[in-house]
Amino acid sequence: MAASIYPDYPPELTSTQSEYLLSNVKDWSILNGLAVRPSLSFVSEEVDSSRSLAVTAPVTIFPSLFPRRCFEEARAIQTAYNELYALVARDEEWLRNIVEEIVEVDDFIAHLWDVHLAVKKEGYVQSLSLGIFRSDYMVHKDPSQPDTKPEIRQVEFNTIASSFGGLAAKVSGLHSHLLSITAYPPMNPALITKSSLPANSSIASISQGLAVAHKAYGPPKSHPSLPLCILFVVQDPENNVFDQHALASALLSNHNILTFRLPFPVTLAHTHISSGQPSRPLIYKPPHSPSTAYEVTTLYFRAGYAPTEYTSSKSWEARLHLERSAAIKCPSILTHLAGSKKIQQILATPSSLHLDRFLSSTISADLISRVRATFAAIYPLDDSKAGKYAIGIATDVGKARGYVLKPQREGGGNNIYGLKIPPFIKSLGDESKKYRSHILMELIEPPALRNSVYRNGEVTQGEVIGELGVYGVCLWQHGEEVAGPKILENWEAGYLLRTKGKDSEEGGVAAGFGAVDSVCLIDV
Amino acid sequence: MAASIYPDYPPELTSTQSEYLLSNVKDWSILNGLAVRPSLSFVSEEVDSSRSLAVTAPVTIFPSLFPRRCFEEARAIQTAYNELYALVARDEEWLRNIVEEIVEVDDFIAHLWDVHLAVKKEGYVQSLSLGIFRSDYMVHKDPSQPDTKPEIRQVEFNTIASSFGGLAAKVSGLHSHLLSITAYPPMNPALITKSSLPANSSIASISQGLAVAHKAYGPPKSHPSLPLCILFVVQDPENNVFDQHALASALLSNHNILTFRLPFPVTLAHTHISSGQPSRPLIYKPPHSPSTAYEVTTLYFRAGYAPTEYTSSKSWEARLHLERSAAIKCPSILTHLAGSKKIQQILATPSSLHLDRFLSSTISADLISRVRATFAAIYPLDDSKAGKYAIGIATDVGKARGYVLKPQREGGGNNIYGLKIPPFIKSLGDESKKYRSHILMELIEPPALRNSVYRNGEVTQGEVIGELGVYGVCLWQHGEEVAGPKILENWEAGYLLRTKGKDSEEGGVAAGFGAVDSVCLIDV
Repeated sequence: MAASIYPDYPPELTSTQSEYLLSNVKDWSILNGLAVRPSLSFVSEEVDSSRSLAVTAPVTIFPSLFPRRCFEEARAIQTAYNELYALVARDEEWLRNIVEEIVEVDDFIAHLWDVHLAVKKEGYVQSLSLGIFRSDYMVHKDPSQPDTKPEIRQVEFNTIASSFGGLAAKVSGLHSHLLSITAYPPMNPALITKSSLPANSSIASISQGLAVAHKAYGPPKSHPSLPLCILFVVQDPENNVFDQHALASALLSNHNILTFRLPFPVTLAHTHISSGQPSRPLIYKPPHSPSTAYEVTTLYFRAGYAPTEYTSSKSWEARLHLERSAAIKCPSILTHLAGSKKIQQILATPSSLHLDRFLSSTISADLISRVRATFAAIYPLDDSKAGKYAIGIATDVGKARGYVLKPQREGGGNNIYGLKIPPFIKSLGDESKKYRSHILMELIEPPALRNSVYRNGEVTQGEVIGELGVYGVCLWQHGEEVAGPKILENWEAGYLLRTKGKDSEEGGVAAGFGAVDSVCLIDV
Repeated sequence: MAASIYPDYPPELTSTQSEYLLSNVKDWSILNGLAVRPSLSFVSEEVDSSRSLAVTAPVTIFPSLFPRRCFEEARAIQTAYNELYALVARDEEWLRNIVEEIVEVDDFIAHLWDVHLAVKKEGYVQSLSLGIFRSDYMVHKDPSQPDTKPEIRQVEFNTIASSFGGLAAKVSGLHSHLLSITAYPPMNPALITKSSLPANSSIASISQGLAVAHKAYGPPKSHPSLPLCILFVVQDPENNVFDQHALASALLSNHNILTFRLPFPVTLAHTHISSGQPSRPLIYKPPHSPSTAYEVTTLYFRAGYAPTEYTSSKSWEARLHLERSAAIKCPSILTHLAGSKKIQQILATPSSLHLDRFLSSTISADLISRVRATFAAIYPLDDSKAGKYAIGIATDVGKARGYVLKPQREGGGNNIYGLKIPPFIKSLGDESKKYRSHILMELIEPPALRNSVYRNGEVTQGEVIGELGVYGVCLWQHGEEVAGPKILENWEAGYLLRTKGKDSEEGGVAAGFGAVDSVCLIDV
């Protein structure tokens, strides 16, 4: 689509132009904290044993062309998506039916559900739930119908640890800066203009979400009162630490809210819930100053989403400990579960009525149909009619080409594409149980664009594909009988464009390695 | 002084406290562009051939204790100092007498003066001159009079390339941040408090100075009109590039002014003055886009101050070319000359009336005496009475201990201290000409404090001494018959505290290697 309309984008650069552009990318990014800690393959531990160095986060040199109508549509439906997933997370009964179907094939989901059941048995003490979501899309245009307009198709909906919001706004800032300082050469037509580069509020909007939860928590529950804080539950080490710091910094500067970082594996060592406090405030004692205790209003999970992080029963004990506390969880266990591939598949199953069930009392039929229009066909691999149809595709080399097989669980990776699906299915043997831990999804094959990626100090250029994520913030009350509205806050919160090399044998931009990008809107 | 009052500052840290503090120093600095490109001794070219990596600029972990009255006095007299040096730079006749005395021993000064004469002969076309100054002080307390209050003594006054203003405000921000997040342990007394950490406006105030000059330049002089810009004349490569970018970024964000960086050695290749334009607008054609020309309103020299930068007659041709243009120079040749050590020495010669001559018509006698009180005794090494007295000191091992010998020329380094002075003087032979290229100055020996310096990924701690710089911005009109006031703008523009290891054999903070610091004010 875009590639064929503007084959000369991005423009060819002379070496002087290229040097000027790159030198400004390198300097602006460091000046503005658009950075990561370099990987050990770039800078060995021997050179930088104290992990002091930083490097520009992987970014594209140019903003990638993106259809304006697709971008605007994705943003316009975000609050409906936020509401949908909040309502799913509130509907324990509905979730139970689905979860029970997959617990036997997915240990991780089973464990999460057990955590929920344990807290439910004791009784939840916090009725508020915060979602910082990201709905990810690709542009899709049916190759068999060349006259149709490009549309967005949802790739996944993230309910936990939706990352890169702290960098995405900065990449928009970077590309706007490069335009301002005339680092992009004149083009005809002039595609990169102020009006084609939309503002990106991701840092301000996402941190505002955390601030709203912090405020909604209310006064301290501990006696005597302790100072309040937000805890970022993180992985350690974390190369992408500046993404998270951008949010913490905005919380401190704009909202005067103190945050601390707590590596998930040491949760139990540094937090506690006093048995004498039925309201269960979560108390954090910073290791650097254990004599000063804080009460945690909000737990922001940037860890705990991958099964590999749960290395022992202690990990599950920690998750249970956090879930039963009075802190507002971002996300709660049920919200985490709502983001499983299985839920996405059920919502997106053609002819299902779930979408109407959740949304029709508050959202217009038109908007519901626009949400539905973003679904790519997703199938279970089970004994249902749709499931049997899908297994037929997945085992047939002739049909599997246009599909992707994805595990139900969170955390990305391990997708099986096209022709690799049938041998993979075969390798599972006859155990239909194992089939059911996956879903089959129609492959969205967006037309390739060209761009240059700056990563680890090197520029590579070639064919790329982009994935648009729209952030959403939602604060809601769960439980059956809540006073007042269920949804308390709900807004769209900026966007991420993540661009990676198109899977090809020809080299160029490394396939699978994403770079943060921004959109250059075009009318197609 | 301070060291003896608060011997426990900075406090001892446990390893957990130290790790927390350092980890926040490392992360906040990169998030906020308080960075430098690492030296080749830290990261070899082999590891980072594209010079992509960055590291925290050398900073102190704690703000250094500094007497409040000294800090306030240094800031209070800055506008008087600005005016003094603006008026010195305006007084060509007065300067001529001094310069003619040293041209024969100082090639560099001679060349600068020749540039002025050449432009004077042709006629200056720009009557405005911008100074971005920095007056550097040390705290001094006469060891023989223990009951006196600490006072400031001027080390030097910089009229060209006054650096670190782009980092200094950020270090104040860093230390305030560390206080906000409770990274400093509780102390008794609580020395690090909000009220002991003054705000530092260096970035906003210095960039405002450039913006004021840009605006005062007026409309384009070229026909047809070209877009206007400010040129930063820089060294290349420059590890301290983020210091300069912080100012450029503020110019773009706060004032919508475009800046470009021009390495001094390629000045002639990328700028020109059309012979058909008697008003001599300086035209810059960016190498990355030579078809788009800009008219330069203001030349901000962050290069061209060191004799070693003038490698051939082309370098002097370039300096002349820039000086004769219509751009406002920061600084002009005469302002550059006004910052020579010789001028400082003449102003500071005990019993001289120069200070009154320049300031008494506009500045109160009280303020003049406060400026004078900051002078350390400075002597010429010539045939005058003071000069002979000084040569007596400089050649006597018994007397030289409390003095420092400094070259007249700009650029720092090459100072000869104490007992090393007599053998150095001896090595000059009998040529009194060579003596005259130096001045002798009473050594200010501030009491040592303790601090920790983070540099190249390593922390060292030990005894340190600090040097306070106060920035000043001044815009004035030169020429004999100017309409309106001579001084158009004049303000104090934030501060720098530069801290370095005390010269000692005991190791610790490397002597001579400075770190950017901020003040923690104490009442002594």
